Amino acid sequence: MNLLLLQAENMLSENRAEISGRQVQHIHKTLNIETGNQLTVGLLNKQIGRATIVDLQQDSAQLEIEWISAPPEALPLTLIIGLPRPKMLKRIIQTATTMGVKDLYFINAWKVEKSFWQSPWLSDEKLFGNCILGLEQAKDTVLPKIHLRKLFKPFVEDELAAISEGSLKLLAHPITEQACPANIKTQTTLIIGPEGGFTPYEVSKLEEVGFETVHLGARILRVETAVPVLLGRLFQS
Amino acid sequence: MNLLLLQAENMLSENRAEISGRQVQHIHKTLNIETGNQLTVGLLNKQIGRATIVDLQQDSAQLEIEWISAPPEALPLTLIIGLPRPKMLKRIIQTATTMGVKDLYFINAWKVEKSFWQSPWLSDEKLFGNCILGLEQAKDTVLPKIHLRKLFKPFVEDELAAISEGSLKLLAHPITEQACPANIKTQTTLIIGPEGGFTPYEVSKLEEVGFETVHLGARILRVETAVPVLLGRLFQS
Repeated sequence: MNLLLLQAENMLSENRAEISGRQVQHIHKTLNIETGNQLTVGLLNKQIGRATIVDLQQDSAQLEIEWISAPPEALPLTLIIGLPRPKMLKRIIQTATTMGVKDLYFINAWKVEKSFWQSPWLSDEKLFGNCILGLEQAKDTVLPKIHLRKLFKPFVEDELAAISEGSLKLLAHPITEQACPANIKTQTTLIIGPEGGFTPYEVSKLEEVGFETVHLGARILRVETAVPVLLGRLFQS
Repeated sequence: MNLLLLQAENMLSENRAEISGRQVQHIHKTLNIETGNQLTVGLLNKQIGRATIVDLQQDSAQLEIEWISAPPEALPLTLIIGLPRPKMLKRIIQTATTMGVKDLYFINAWKVEKSFWQSPWLSDEKLFGNCILGLEQAKDTVLPKIHLRKLFKPFVEDELAAISEGSLKLLAHPITEQACPANIKTQTTLIIGPEGGFTPYEVSKLEEVGFETVHLGARILRVETAVPVLLGRLFQS
């Protein structure tokens, strides 16, 4: 946690907040700081500031905040991923959020196991929790929107053209001639398959919408590795 | 597993191998293939080939192999990381191995918890196992060398100059002016701190050996995310 992310319900007034639970535990156990010390805070979807701990109890703390700056810039990216297995899902959400993704779709595909859609990690509460962890890591405050699409064909035929309109359309796919571009500034829609990749039919459906297949070299990466590699390569801050 | 990695003890002759255990289970459960089918294999530290399953039992299988190609190129990199917590360690080893790292040091630092050095994941057997998983993912055969250094100062003062001699010397560090270079071909030594970073004293010791601090932008990444982002940015295949 490089920033303590406050929500509207934490705010007692414009410059004063009260926290409890996980966040107070983090102050006691990890930060090991006390009354009078300062730490970086953010308000969900709003500004970043410096907070002074004015009252620290075992289960709660009050903070006096000076608001300083806007959150960091988002990536100009819509990221679409074949739903990964639950264990990977939470890491991928945290990684994408930390790196600045604000629009994240998980979609069905032939190689997505049906049981993955039953995962408790897809509940609104768990999705929100993993986004918060990603934002706190990145010192960001702006919550990503996560969209779940359980049917591949209607998503691709009815929604994808509008979602990706006017953007560079990339489909990460190991079997292609074209290397993934690097260091672009363009608004981009990037699709990454499930573990095992898209089927040829699925690839052709995505190509029909204008997506171009691009590879990352001879080594096949796991999805959870491909996400940071692709984002870091496309957008080099 | 995109390649089934054989070891010398699996080889019955130059072109025939017998496998058991995890690898046979993978054939039954994941690949769902049978006698007569083919799959990609490699021999540890040697070539890659196509294998035909000539005998498939519940607990073992025999393969007939045609050797085809050399393993993919390694990264021109020595990677040095402050020892991460055990849960992260195995993922970092797998990721670095998959991406082509062949020389990997885990070192001590002020913010490395002493208990991390007691982790069973640091046993030769577990290190080897995680390297194998990384190689099988990348269709590679060449085992990385993993080095453990439990004392920071002797490592930096007595070893690091020789290890990094003639290479580009980079220290990933969020607080610096210089952005990390991209798409280089140069032999490189890259140092990444532990979670929480190196102390100012540690940074100055590394700078004394000639390491230059470079950042990855405003967003602070977890070590397990920074590794693929840095490797993918430095070496764009």
